[in-house]
Amino acid sequence: MSTSRMRAEIGEQPEALRRTLEALLPRTADIAQLARETRQVLFIARGSSDNAAVYGRYLVESHTGRLATLAAPSIATTYKRKVDLSGVLAVAISQSGKTEEIVETLDWATGNGARTVAITNGAGSPLAEAAEVALVTDAGDELAVPATKTYTTQLAALSVLGLGLGADVELDDLRAVPDEVQRLIAITESAPALPEIVEELAQVPGAVVSGRGIAFGTALELALKIKEACYLHAMGLSYADLLHGPIAVVDAQTPALLVAAEEGPTLPGTVALARRVTTAGARAYGIGGGKGLAESSSLALPGPALAEWVAPLGLIVPGQILVENLARRLGIDPDVPRGLNKVTQTD
Amino acid sequence: MSTSRMRAEIGEQPEALRRTLEALLPRTADIAQLARETRQVLFIARGSSDNAAVYGRYLVESHTGRLATLAAPSIATTYKRKVDLSGVLAVAISQSGKTEEIVETLDWATGNGARTVAITNGAGSPLAEAAEVALVTDAGDELAVPATKTYTTQLAALSVLGLGLGADVELDDLRAVPDEVQRLIAITESAPALPEIVEELAQVPGAVVSGRGIAFGTALELALKIKEACYLHAMGLSYADLLHGPIAVVDAQTPALLVAAEEGPTLPGTVALARRVTTAGARAYGIGGGKGLAESSSLALPGPALAEWVAPLGLIVPGQILVENLARRLGIDPDVPRGLNKVTQTD
Repeated sequence: MSTSRMRAEIGEQPEALRRTLEALLPRTADIAQLARETRQVLFIARGSSDNAAVYGRYLVESHTGRLATLAAPSIATTYKRKVDLSGVLAVAISQSGKTEEIVETLDWATGNGARTVAITNGAGSPLAEAAEVALVTDAGDELAVPATKTYTTQLAALSVLGLGLGADVELDDLRAVPDEVQRLIAITESAPALPEIVEELAQVPGAVVSGRGIAFGTALELALKIKEACYLHAMGLSYADLLHGPIAVVDAQTPALLVAAEEGPTLPGTVALARRVTTAGARAYGIGGGKGLAESSSLALPGPALAEWVAPLGLIVPGQILVENLARRLGIDPDVPRGLNKVTQTD
Repeated sequence: MSTSRMRAEIGEQPEALRRTLEALLPRTADIAQLARETRQVLFIARGSSDNAAVYGRYLVESHTGRLATLAAPSIATTYKRKVDLSGVLAVAISQSGKTEEIVETLDWATGNGARTVAITNGAGSPLAEAAEVALVTDAGDELAVPATKTYTTQLAALSVLGLGLGADVELDDLRAVPDEVQRLIAITESAPALPEIVEELAQVPGAVVSGRGIAFGTALELALKIKEACYLHAMGLSYADLLHGPIAVVDAQTPALLVAAEEGPTLPGTVALARRVTTAGARAYGIGGGKGLAESSSLALPGPALAEWVAPLGLIVPGQILVENLARRLGIDPDVPRGLNKVTQTD
């Protein structure tokens, strides 16, 4: 029986999500007030936080009708170029709140006329201090290098951001998340497919991870986790980008991991992709996507029974458990993968 | 001696670039006129065209001071959600001009209040017809599946777009491109490092491809070419994103390809990355980046002697030649990789 720190932190997510929602749900009015003079959102992030931002952009665009895109931090930090950001709500995301590149880019946004929000687990961190509104997540200390509870609580903060921007969604969907994540952890760990998928992934050099729309950020995050904790060549790609070239790499030695919410307009395309992969003689592992994706996949893990707009808060969890098991199967300590520090500094 | 169609089309690029610049340079006033009522640029693209858009965003942001970001087409085509695009110049890029997803997303942008530009090699195509200003490249017919001359002429059209938006650059830098690409093809093909890099890449399951800022799109495009024509697990990552996790996969079995212009603020970071990779016992192959990157790499190919803002128009060329040679070394016909069609339809 393993007792990795990563596994413990995966299990702490229901409580971390409860605390974070309790702290942040009262902040929707602050967000609405700040956003009043803006018309669009620009996310500033790197790594896992950047994958959270991809969820944020789809949530904001598909449910509030505001344009929401991702910034290129090097314009601020390397090119040091002024860009007109009037009317922009800049949302910077960093687990520690100490990554200098992100703090510097948020300051650049302020200097260019943007209004600013920080999403961070670092209360009192430079990033929290630099923003007009700080949504401080309450994940507690995270000691394993691969982000788990700091990532899902970032998603919770982004859901609150969406509510503050007037998203056409039901608050109760978000309130259901912590209990559902708790249930999902239990059923994933007892899923017969889990050890089978781990064993198969232990035999291949790489995998493709795909999802679309609101689930696309989950695919990117799962691919990043597989790369950083299992050293596999995992490519995170949207359904559409996969068909524009990289589908050529999917073969008997390169399985596809496919993630989807139980409902929503991107589900049929994901099910069709699973069929295409298995028809081509490759293995497809489904995560979520209900009965349709499970039946079209070679092996499948359950997903969260959550509305599409909050599904990513649960959808990464079976992936986290898969990564933690695969790392140990490969003889890697998931808590301390090579080459990484907990706070990443880039220029 | 090989005579792949891809190789022939690589050689046609100087002439294709000359024709395209002659056709498009007179259009800068049309772009300036259309852009007058807009404040930012939103690119709409997939696959190689999306990599061209990444060049476009850095060029526009770093040299015109306008915000420039990438659209998520599924908001238009799958979620079918209205988004406020007033003040936005939407620039759709598609080689054929027939990819329905891109045409549909441009129509969505029009319906949401954006002004519109198309960049396509398809004169009279649905995309060219749908836009207010069509920048039609003159690459001629491209028959090999991997895009080469349609990609570099897209970059030329994006350079013209930048000029139309008032970029603080020298027109002569752009005029120098066709001759420099011609020279670069010749010196790359006779570079002693070319067969050595091909031989080393033929022995590994995957590679990381990295570049930053204006060269980041080149890294993504080279990674895509390696995936689609050589079936290697190639990951295109910015310097900064690489350090946020995926650096863990760089090892003796996973070399890094690093691309950079001969000058510019991102060059020092790229040179430092080459040193970090080789110090860790992995192989680094430099493309461009002058003497600094060549000396810090295990093996190096020459890059274009071009100003940074137009360097990507030449920087991909040694990569194209490398991919064409590697595909043949691996017994793959570069003209017809598996799983791909020339016009990709996604929903």
